[in-house]
Amino acid sequence: MTVTVAVDAMGGDHGPSVTIPAALAFLEETPDARVILVGLDAPCAAVLTKSRSSARDRVSLQAATEVVAMDEPPADALRKKKDSSMRVAVNLVKDGTAQACVSAGNTGALMAIARFVLKTLPGIDRPAIASQLPTRKGVTTALDLGANVNCTCEQLVQFAVMGSALVTAVDGIERPTIGLLNIGEEDIKGNDVVKQTAELLKASPLNFYGNVEGDDLYKGTTDVVVCDGFVGNVALKVSEGLVVMLYDFLKTEFMRNPVRRLAALAAFPALRAFKKRVDPRRYNGATLVGLRGVVVKSHGGADVLGFRYALLKAYTEVANGVLDKIAHEIAAMPAAISPTAAVVAAEPHA
Amino acid sequence: MTVTVAVDAMGGDHGPSVTIPAALAFLEETPDARVILVGLDAPCAAVLTKSRSSARDRVSLQAATEVVAMDEPPADALRKKKDSSMRVAVNLVKDGTAQACVSAGNTGALMAIARFVLKTLPGIDRPAIASQLPTRKGVTTALDLGANVNCTCEQLVQFAVMGSALVTAVDGIERPTIGLLNIGEEDIKGNDVVKQTAELLKASPLNFYGNVEGDDLYKGTTDVVVCDGFVGNVALKVSEGLVVMLYDFLKTEFMRNPVRRLAALAAFPALRAFKKRVDPRRYNGATLVGLRGVVVKSHGGADVLGFRYALLKAYTEVANGVLDKIAHEIAAMPAAISPTAAVVAAEPHA
Repeated sequence: MTVTVAVDAMGGDHGPSVTIPAALAFLEETPDARVILVGLDAPCAAVLTKSRSSARDRVSLQAATEVVAMDEPPADALRKKKDSSMRVAVNLVKDGTAQACVSAGNTGALMAIARFVLKTLPGIDRPAIASQLPTRKGVTTALDLGANVNCTCEQLVQFAVMGSALVTAVDGIERPTIGLLNIGEEDIKGNDVVKQTAELLKASPLNFYGNVEGDDLYKGTTDVVVCDGFVGNVALKVSEGLVVMLYDFLKTEFMRNPVRRLAALAAFPALRAFKKRVDPRRYNGATLVGLRGVVVKSHGGADVLGFRYALLKAYTEVANGVLDKIAHEIAAMPAAISPTAAVVAAEPHA
Repeated sequence: MTVTVAVDAMGGDHGPSVTIPAALAFLEETPDARVILVGLDAPCAAVLTKSRSSARDRVSLQAATEVVAMDEPPADALRKKKDSSMRVAVNLVKDGTAQACVSAGNTGALMAIARFVLKTLPGIDRPAIASQLPTRKGVTTALDLGANVNCTCEQLVQFAVMGSALVTAVDGIERPTIGLLNIGEEDIKGNDVVKQTAELLKASPLNFYGNVEGDDLYKGTTDVVVCDGFVGNVALKVSEGLVVMLYDFLKTEFMRNPVRRLAALAAFPALRAFKKRVDPRRYNGATLVGLRGVVVKSHGGADVLGFRYALLKAYTEVANGVLDKIAHEIAAMPAAISPTAAVVAAEPHA
């Protein structure tokens, strides 16, 4: 099966100078993939013609006349820019020309456009943002990382279903363990929504581990960590801020005087290996999960390597049938989880 | 002025073997302080008699017959253990014998007992847990870190007032900047409670900076960061988990082979300086703020140095009149913030 990925070539801080080389590198390592670059004609053609990549023949260009700005209000991007590179790329998934779409552009706009164009999967009220984080044991998939600031317990259960299916598809883990982010492990802890969510998860066919705390995220206690988008976004941003601060402190200490700088030289292989291990580029690519199509959001500042990882993520999700897996797991849930779940359960799956 | 600190000598993972040496070390560096050790007679006397500290004469022993267990439900600790070391220590603050109380015991029990015995300050609905975190610029005081899972916007504004007064008292900063933890800087971001809180803070006499995001916590963007206890607790625990993971990775890389281990030796001064800079013991001591008395919670696993920092924190808060400062700032707030604020404003301050 060939997987076609629509790439918003204009998105992100660097646009075509990063997205196009990344797309070609991705194609070189993924022989059964194709890419449709969506963007303004001139800048895309300029980068593309310079390429001597062997994968050049698996790239096609689709013109778009507008670009969504990084700080543009999502509602404006949705209503006023019908021919943006982002919108056209999502349209290609909608009409079946592509199976996935990747953009490093404005997150809010991508979510608004993807939700409007693709709609959510049956049984899913709202899409969520899911991402992998490095842990002491491997990786954890956390969601929602910022799409939904207020969540009902049914929605949190839907996130659990989506996270479970995503981990099965991407990491090949059958019945991944699900942790519910809380401020204590005991059942009595947390707010009412979290407490009720725990009850629903216990009664579900999912492999529910129980409540987990913030530090469990990096301990790798569970394969999936579920939380609302406010808490998830804070957890993610706090982590980013802390890593930057710690790197900064480490660098300062190693640069403090000539003796220390000499020590840094000796320590370089260890420091480089350390940095590589937590390299955020390796974890680049957040999935907008719950839609009728695979949509991956790359970090806006991603370089070629980072954007390539985001493309690979989209490809892997399609190749492993993540959408079918979510539909299947939602159908297996008790009817109470979602107003539409009972209907879905009665339908045959694709 | 002499400041008397009541110490729950039995609290924490190590009890008197840590709390008593820490109390003596604290007294040696703080000539105008006194300590009342509260605990079971025999174990406290055993540690105390071995001491040759010059500060020995500024320590007195107050017997208690019970100890609150680290995993005891707070309601049980409150109702069934009226003669616990924790309860007696808080009682000493209530009756004016001591001006502050420090415990490394069960956080929930300490909060329940302190709230029941001391009550909240006029104009404060609920106490919060406040702590200092290291940042790229210095320190930030964050609250609430876990006492209140559901907060109204009025309560969040009260946290801002308490945080502001705390920073003025402890760090000597007049009009500290206040950040409201959110998932975006724009006014339209976040849930309804956060949006309304921002409006109230804008209209207040506090030095409100605006919304801040998770990474601003460690950038040190503002002197105070306000959030509800669920989000604050997750942010704190996520940070703890991340630091442990990064240390672990760093250690693994430096121990991977003999050459790397040699490099680690050369890098030791830099690594030690780095570790010292983020040493959690230096930031030990969370303040239960908003009570009619100074109550500081030490980390349960704190060693002598860590517990000494918690004692010093309690002392500093008392010496700099933190309670008066909170009362003063609450009185200066518009009446809408708190049902009782209008009454407070009409009362003379101590």
